[in-house]
Amino acid sequence: MTDVLTFLDALPQEIVITDPDIVASYSRDQSRFTDSAVPAAVLAPRTTAEVSACMAAAQRDSVVVIPRGAGSGLSGAANASAGSVVLSLHRMTAIREIDPVNRLAVVEPGVVTADLRARAAAEGLFYPPDPGSVAFSTVGGNVATNAGGMCCVKYGVTGDFVLGLEVVLADGRIMRTGRRTVKGVAGYDLTHLLVGSEGTLGVITEITVRLLPAPREAHTLVASFPTLESAGLAVSEIAASGSTPSMLEILDRTTVQAVDRMTKMGIGEDTAALVLVQSDDVDAASVLAGIEAVCSGVGAVEVVVSSDPTEAALLLEARRSALRALEALGDWLLDDVAVPRSRITDLIAFVESTAAELGLIIGVFGHAGDGNLHPTIIYDESDESSKAAAVAAFDAITRRALELGGTITGEHGVGRLKSSWLAVEHDETSMSVQRAVKAALDPAGILNPGVGGFAARA
Amino acid sequence: MTDVLTFLDALPQEIVITDPDIVASYSRDQSRFTDSAVPAAVLAPRTTAEVSACMAAAQRDSVVVIPRGAGSGLSGAANASAGSVVLSLHRMTAIREIDPVNRLAVVEPGVVTADLRARAAAEGLFYPPDPGSVAFSTVGGNVATNAGGMCCVKYGVTGDFVLGLEVVLADGRIMRTGRRTVKGVAGYDLTHLLVGSEGTLGVITEITVRLLPAPREAHTLVASFPTLESAGLAVSEIAASGSTPSMLEILDRTTVQAVDRMTKMGIGEDTAALVLVQSDDVDAASVLAGIEAVCSGVGAVEVVVSSDPTEAALLLEARRSALRALEALGDWLLDDVAVPRSRITDLIAFVESTAAELGLIIGVFGHAGDGNLHPTIIYDESDESSKAAAVAAFDAITRRALELGGTITGEHGVGRLKSSWLAVEHDETSMSVQRAVKAALDPAGILNPGVGGFAARA
Ligand SMILES: Cc1cc2nc3c(=O)[nH]c(=O)nc-3n(C[C@H](O)[C@H](O)[C@H](O)COP(=O)(O)OP(=O)(O)OC[C@H]3O[C@@H](n4cnc5c(N)ncnc54)[C@H](O)[C@@H]3O)c2cc1C
Ligand SMILES: Cc1cc2nc3c(=O)[nH]c(=O)nc-3n(C[C@H](O)[C@H](O)[C@H](O)COP(=O)(O)OP(=O)(O)OC[C@H]3O[C@@H](n4cnc5c(N)ncnc54)[C@H](O)[C@@H]3O)c2cc1C
Repeated sequence: MTDVLTFLDALPQEIVITDPDIVASYSRDQSRFTDSAVPAAVLAPRTTAEVSACMAAAQRDSVVVIPRGAGSGLSGAANASAGSVVLSLHRMTAIREIDPVNRLAVVEPGVVTADLRARAAAEGLFYPPDPGSVAFSTVGGNVATNAGGMCCVKYGVTGDFVLGLEVVLADGRIMRTGRRTVKGVAGYDLTHLLVGSEGTLGVITEITVRLLPAPREAHTLVASFPTLESAGLAVSEIAASGSTPSMLEILDRTTVQAVDRMTKMGIGEDTAALVLVQSDDVDAASVLAGIEAVCSGVGAVEVVVSSDPTEAALLLEARRSALRALEALGDWLLDDVAVPRSRITDLIAFVESTAAELGLIIGVFGHAGDGNLHPTIIYDESDESSKAAAVAAFDAITRRALELGGTITGEHGVGRLKSSWLAVEHDETSMSVQRAVKAALDPAGILNPGVGGFAARA
Repeated sequence: MTDVLTFLDALPQEIVITDPDIVASYSRDQSRFTDSAVPAAVLAPRTTAEVSACMAAAQRDSVVVIPRGAGSGLSGAANASAGSVVLSLHRMTAIREIDPVNRLAVVEPGVVTADLRARAAAEGLFYPPDPGSVAFSTVGGNVATNAGGMCCVKYGVTGDFVLGLEVVLADGRIMRTGRRTVKGVAGYDLTHLLVGSEGTLGVITEITVRLLPAPREAHTLVASFPTLESAGLAVSEIAASGSTPSMLEILDRTTVQAVDRMTKMGIGEDTAALVLVQSDDVDAASVLAGIEAVCSGVGAVEVVVSSDPTEAALLLEARRSALRALEALGDWLLDDVAVPRSRITDLIAFVESTAAELGLIIGVFGHAGDGNLHPTIIYDESDESSKAAAVAAFDAITRRALELGGTITGEHGVGRLKSSWLAVEHDETSMSVQRAVKAALDPAGILNPGVGGFAARA
């Protein structure tokens, strides 16, 4: 590790953190079942030039660099390895520009997502991306993972809002991608090559995003269903109906019961699934009336609709507390798969039978409108057989999603958690092209090796 | 050229076209001022396997391959060079699947854009991309150029609808990118690396696109303005107002007069600019009433609004006939730049002064809502000084767009027309990364060399 020390000595000392407690707290993100180690140090650059200096030195000294936003990731993509340095963007938090006429914002990568949303809202504008981690995740991390959330069913994912980037490459060179105009087709789309690249192709140091006009206050609907099939049918019919809900979420029986146990909301024992819908269309009332009819038509037990924001917040509480309620049941391993919308009941039914077979509790909740579900496996970390069962369930669910025409990850990313799965989803030619792209941008392999299915350095 | 003949002999003869007249007709696209030559032959494969065989043989025999859709491009991207072969996708025209529940379509690359739109419409669905060439351009060509159109201001460009691709690489290997689900973040986004790559990274042999619910019948507004400034102000205010028009186009004085001369529509001599707006929102009538007030407020001379489709078609006739009307004035060189929405009047004013200075007629029309304009330079092909003036105007306008914070191409692509401009817009690091990506996917440089700023083979 002498080389890492020499490397650190060469950097401005104000950006080098070596306090062991602080450094240890940068070892990993929020995922489970992923490898990590305490890094050699944390670098906290304040400017693009400092990021560039860090990377140039790292490349020269062959030091592995792990870019990091808030560390809220769920795939181990920001986990450190022994001898690596974590490059944390938490000091780069300026919102450099909000342009209401051209409806765009320019931000540094460490800006917390909620802060950008609030600043946009203050100008009567809207930055839609809203991952569950919106209050603490960073815009840089959202771009590097192409984060989703509840808005996606109407508004799309983070990448859909990224117009351009400033990126520091593995060797310290600085490059701009994209543009400030809404449209533009000059050259290869390096912007979207970087989006979702999980810190393996470059460090994002500035982001230009598109903004929308402020949306209307949404109307909210919650429907409870006596069977999983009827809930699935409702989702399919809503999706096929041509309406454009701004939210379309589902909670399965296990999740509903966990929520009920925690919140004492009194959601009936006979609820097999809950479907939550919002519309912020100008005719939201009639959109939700139509959706209410669909839900009732396929056998919903109860449908509640509200245009009142306070009441809506209460109605959404079940969805908001889903993960916390499941966490309360034990250790958890969160999966993230997406299937064609028409197959979500197939996937949920498979999860239920897998849970029964392996003697596990697995709650499913997620973004039904996008077919993006989060089966959450409850297990006992101290019990090896329970851990093994959790992994078996995780693998079975991920495989089933692929069989249903889906993907191994809808929004959380491949990271270290699913690195062995990438080559199952993608054919060998795609994998070899991805390796060639990685080699083209990071020939020395110092940026986040081991993430995304690309071999760690020998 | 012996090697090309040997190469052709090794392919299934049913897909090799050598008839000199036919082959000559594949020499170039619809652009002006771009180099081209008669290719050695045209290959017209019917299947992905045949495309793969063509590429494997081409790589082995070092033959340059120019992928081609309908040849409707305006940047010379499908132009052939001496000794090359044109690989035309016109026989691969199957619409393989329309899935109404998951709202997606799977098509072969040679499908004409309008045919996909019609098939989607027959199922109550909507494929938005609508370039002016919609009646003859191909979906494969649209993807390879990331084509735009009038819908983009509300719905986005072609790439926004592409979920996944099948691609034959330069060496004949077949790869799938993307997915069938709405969301997915597994691996690098090779799909959008291929979108807009103008045939330089691979041959697209299948495309999976997202569809939308059928839109409502649009309401239409046409406003005429006494000054360019007032029209520009109207566009800015409409864009900033938070409404979401499904069309927002502009025609300048030169274009309006050319249209008037051709169509005898009787648009007044005193019209400095025409702004055309559509809304397909549920409250289109009130949206357009608001826009009408904006237009009147900034001084529009006349505003006509209609909810009648037949009347709307008449109102849009001026926009539809813009290019034809300008063509009638002489030879034309069409530019395609995009600037931040707030700068469109600056750009149009610059075009007007450039036209005056160089003694040229230059009409400007385009997608005002996206800041994407098409200055159309009228010149005399038989007069060298007129040609030189046209090129000077083209360069001056392209440079001005960059100075205004814009891009050298909003939707038509770099092709051969703007290959020398790419390195003006992009920094050297970006250029070197683009070259590295090109080398990673097409190491022998046989796919469309010379397009997009990447050096032709020696
Ligand atoms: C309670 C909870 C709810 C969540 N809900 C959602 C959800 O609804 N949707 C969703 O998609 N995710 C969700 N997540 C996962 C996570 O919040 C997202 O992946 C988020 O985008 C990560 O942002 P971050 O700033 O924490 O990045 P980190 O976790 O620090 O890093 C994530 C990845 O991005 C890279 N990275 C970070 N910053 C940069 C940069 N500037 N340049 C280059 N690479 C960089 C890292 O190397 C790593 O590969 C949730 C997480 C939690 C804990
Ligand atoms: C009257 C008119 C109006 C137009 N209006 C618009 C408009 O509004 N918006 C707009 O964006 N464009 C417009 N265009 C330009 C043109 O129609 C578009 O660029 C269109 O997308 C080209 O499609 P094509 O099938 O003709 O492709 P071609 O011109 O044949 O090829 C274009 C490029 O794509 C590549 N290519 C084609 N097919 C494939 C494939 N299967 N795999 C890999 N590469 C491939 C070619 O190599 C070339 O680089 C217009 C053109 C005309 C003549």
